[in-house]
Amino acid sequence: MDILTSVLEMKEWSRDKRAQGRAIGFVPTMGYLHEGHLSLIRRCRAENDGVVVSLFVNPTQFGPGEDLDRYPRDLAADSCKCTDLGSDVLFTPNGPEMYGPNYYTFVEVERLSGVLCGASRPGHFRGVATVVLKLFNIVSPTRAYFGAKDYQQLQVIQTMVRDLDLDVRIVSCETVREPDGLAMSSRNVYLAPAERAQAVCLYQALRAAERLFQNGENRADEYLRVMRDRITDEPDARPDYISLVNPDTLEDLREVGDRALAVLAVRFGKTRLIDNMLFENGKN
Amino acid sequence: MDILTSVLEMKEWSRDKRAQGRAIGFVPTMGYLHEGHLSLIRRCRAENDGVVVSLFVNPTQFGPGEDLDRYPRDLAADSCKCTDLGSDVLFTPNGPEMYGPNYYTFVEVERLSGVLCGASRPGHFRGVATVVLKLFNIVSPTRAYFGAKDYQQLQVIQTMVRDLDLDVRIVSCETVREPDGLAMSSRNVYLAPAERAQAVCLYQALRAAERLFQNGENRADEYLRVMRDRITDEPDARPDYISLVNPDTLEDLREVGDRALAVLAVRFGKTRLIDNMLFENGKN
Repeated sequence: MDILTSVLEMKEWSRDKRAQGRAIGFVPTMGYLHEGHLSLIRRCRAENDGVVVSLFVNPTQFGPGEDLDRYPRDLAADSCKCTDLGSDVLFTPNGPEMYGPNYYTFVEVERLSGVLCGASRPGHFRGVATVVLKLFNIVSPTRAYFGAKDYQQLQVIQTMVRDLDLDVRIVSCETVREPDGLAMSSRNVYLAPAERAQAVCLYQALRAAERLFQNGENRADEYLRVMRDRITDEPDARPDYISLVNPDTLEDLREVGDRALAVLAVRFGKTRLIDNMLFENGKN
Repeated sequence: MDILTSVLEMKEWSRDKRAQGRAIGFVPTMGYLHEGHLSLIRRCRAENDGVVVSLFVNPTQFGPGEDLDRYPRDLAADSCKCTDLGSDVLFTPNGPEMYGPNYYTFVEVERLSGVLCGASRPGHFRGVATVVLKLFNIVSPTRAYFGAKDYQQLQVIQTMVRDLDLDVRIVSCETVREPDGLAMSSRNVYLAPAERAQAVCLYQALRAAERLFQNGENRADEYLRVMRDRITDEPDARPDYISLVNPDTLEDLREVGDRALAVLAVRFGKTRLIDNMLFENGKN
């Protein structure tokens, strides 16, 4: 596996592969790889000729006071995992390589970026859309793989790809969970043991909402009440948002029809966890 | 010459050419082609294997109350001109093909977009950057040609290309002028005869500034005074801005060193004309 740090080298690698008619699969990450990432890399490996994993803790998607500086990093371990899974390239650009001193250009996906996580993290999805577009332009992937845990991110990226006429195919992959149901996240490492035990409440709240959907409940308020009750059962859980939204527009639902997305963000101390579950009639 | 209206057809044409290793030259326009555009197409023809001219009056770069509805159009004449110059494709997408009903994504080039024309036309350069990025993604050009008359546009696009890691090479082409010096523009057709006669004041103001530069004048105020005097000599000329700026940052200069850009926008009735001149030591 090659470890590339230069944008030009990465472009050259991709140009060669594309010229040979090879399909490039791409898994963009911020590193500190867990089983969720590995499942993306495995699928990427199975579906493409070349596999590129990027590892870049993108400063433009962190707000002031967020965890950019303490975001967990372990390049050596990440590199071993990527090698073991048969990746061809680990692309680890440094900050100045990605954002020069007079960097001015940002991509904004309106509507979808201002709600849910975008409401508590202003500018977050602008940073995400911008870095993902840059990475797509550098890596030229045929397919790119994202986890469904970051549902809003996925919607923002899919909308950007459609609006900007990009050719990459976005592949959404199911959330990977710990045995008790907690969604895998690099940020889980921040949790103190007592918080870790309580953190299962996100998944359990979503499962409670799922049962309501299976029973045909159509009042959104009822979903919200059930999820809120489960979260606030835990002494250290501070909900950031608990919502039931239209899966396409991310707008709050009042009545539940054939499709709904339950989505939540909950803080434990300084750690902010997110999770979601999609409900679709005929699919549950 | 093929006239293509579909994004998919255009992409396919370009994909084929690129797969054959051909260089694609691209001239994006809003149509109503004049000698300025034709000079871009000629140069594009000389430097590339394939030539694509796009003709799209882009709604997102017009503000409310601007001239979107009355912007001059003549597809038949434009098509003849493109054919005569040996273009391979005239790409004329319609509005819904470019901006679907839930279009949300915009590109913002900060700093450069808010000054000069951006100050009197809020959102203009956001619309320009967005449509140019879309067109680049659809046409996949090796080189794209822009006129220096729209200097700020050129700076915005060059910055976007650098920041977003695009591979297209931006080629800046000299402003083409009428015999009396008026910069060619599709909007010149709006001018009443008396306005047309007065409109030469933009060029003459720039030439007066150029003489100051050649004489080593270093007080920016003096340039501004001389240009303003020449513009306000004309009874129907209403200056929008008259500026002397750093050619890279577009920030106002107080003292003039080795490089300066004189740039102005002047209204005649409803018509807004722009022009600029770059002064560089050793090049004047």
